[in-house]
Amino acid sequence: MYSTYDELIYGRRVLEEFIRARTRKIKFVWLTEESAKIFAPKLKSEGIGFEIKTKDDLFKLIKHKDHQGVVAKVEPFKYYDISYFFEMRKCLIISLDGVQDVRNFGSIVRTVYLSGADGIIIGEKGSAKVNSVVVHTSAGATEYIPIAMVQSLVHALNILKAKGFTIYGAVIDENSIPFENIEYSFRSVIVFGNEGKGLTGRVKKACDKLIYIPQRGHIDSFNVSVACGIIVYHIAKKIHSGNV
Amino acid sequence: MYSTYDELIYGRRVLEEFIRARTRKIKFVWLTEESAKIFAPKLKSEGIGFEIKTKDDLFKLIKHKDHQGVVAKVEPFKYYDISYFFEMRKCLIISLDGVQDVRNFGSIVRTVYLSGADGIIIGEKGSAKVNSVVVHTSAGATEYIPIAMVQSLVHALNILKAKGFTIYGAVIDENSIPFENIEYSFRSVIVFGNEGKGLTGRVKKACDKLIYIPQRGHIDSFNVSVACGIIVYHIAKKIHSGNV
Repeated sequence: MYSTYDELIYGRRVLEEFIRARTRKIKFVWLTEESAKIFAPKLKSEGIGFEIKTKDDLFKLIKHKDHQGVVAKVEPFKYYDISYFFEMRKCLIISLDGVQDVRNFGSIVRTVYLSGADGIIIGEKGSAKVNSVVVHTSAGATEYIPIAMVQSLVHALNILKAKGFTIYGAVIDENSIPFENIEYSFRSVIVFGNEGKGLTGRVKKACDKLIYIPQRGHIDSFNVSVACGIIVYHIAKKIHSGNV
Repeated sequence: MYSTYDELIYGRRVLEEFIRARTRKIKFVWLTEESAKIFAPKLKSEGIGFEIKTKDDLFKLIKHKDHQGVVAKVEPFKYYDISYFFEMRKCLIISLDGVQDVRNFGSIVRTVYLSGADGIIIGEKGSAKVNSVVVHTSAGATEYIPIAMVQSLVHALNILKAKGFTIYGAVIDENSIPFENIEYSFRSVIVFGNEGKGLTGRVKKACDKLIYIPQRGHIDSFNVSVACGIIVYHIAKKIHSGNV
């Protein structure tokens, strides 16, 4: 009944989003008695099988305390192909060059969706992939925003450039421009780097322009998911209100 | 030699910031052979005692993998009193009403510092306190930004109001105004709520104005540390460039 490729998700809000989004089939749900009061009627009417378990049983399934009485088995996540973005007239893509922390990745997915940006591209190597923690941290936004995974990020960026996209790298560098002092193309890709190392040299070279957030002091820069929030919120508003 | 009130910190960047900030005395440092190559000369010249340990020893001390070969025992964290802010002519304070996740709290401390805002106020009950994870996630910003802890947040907000501050609550509510459509007072407090429940009713009532970030779609709102980044970066720039 369950494919070995099926994935587990957890949390009340996440299950709600999966029921609403209908992008991935929900194969089975485990609930506590308490959460069953909320979800049983809906699951019955949708014809989704479920079973009542203890909190401990649910913890054993996913090794997380914050399941809120809900664990579900769902179809595997499907990544998009970057060609999905080629024909969009206005398009803001966020690309991640080795963001490793699943919570940062999940938070970025949520931000990209809520800001009104159009999609995400991650490289296959060294990047956090979509898993149950990412789905949870994204508040279910993984089911609403296209996420593409590519073998080589540099190659993907070059293809997008050839298709008319402008590539902006977020990095504090001598050539970087404050992110608010720039007019963004209607078709833009913003690349954010690894939590510790930032952008790799090859990705930096593939960028048309480098941007940064002016900041106080000498400590490390903004957390990558916060930096993404500040920059993407600013640009998405400009691109999608036609304000550039 | 070590008070029971001393605290542990970890990570290379954090130790660097502690050496630079000099706000809390570093009492002893445990290093791996590798990290000793970087830190031993500096520690010797500063007269700080240290010892070489294995990675496993360091893990046992702090129960975290990401110590990067550095654990240190430091003086306890000192919270400020809110009177510290009373006489500031321009002042942007971030107040947290029950933010529970230590990583969110640490990320907010880092954002508040880097954005150029002036301080943080947390309530004693139900809020994450400064600990080793918060220090680490803040990249050491805990040592640079004043953080006050108060018994009653509502009481503290009312005192600040009496001192001429305007209180803004970040919440999606029928009375909320988009955060960019408002002129902020030179002396402002922005309150962010708990990750799940948002602002408590009593705190919401204590606010002069409610603000929100316009967003797409119906999933949950922005992660609190990202929301804080978007809003605080915007306001800090206005207040501290005299632009309001």
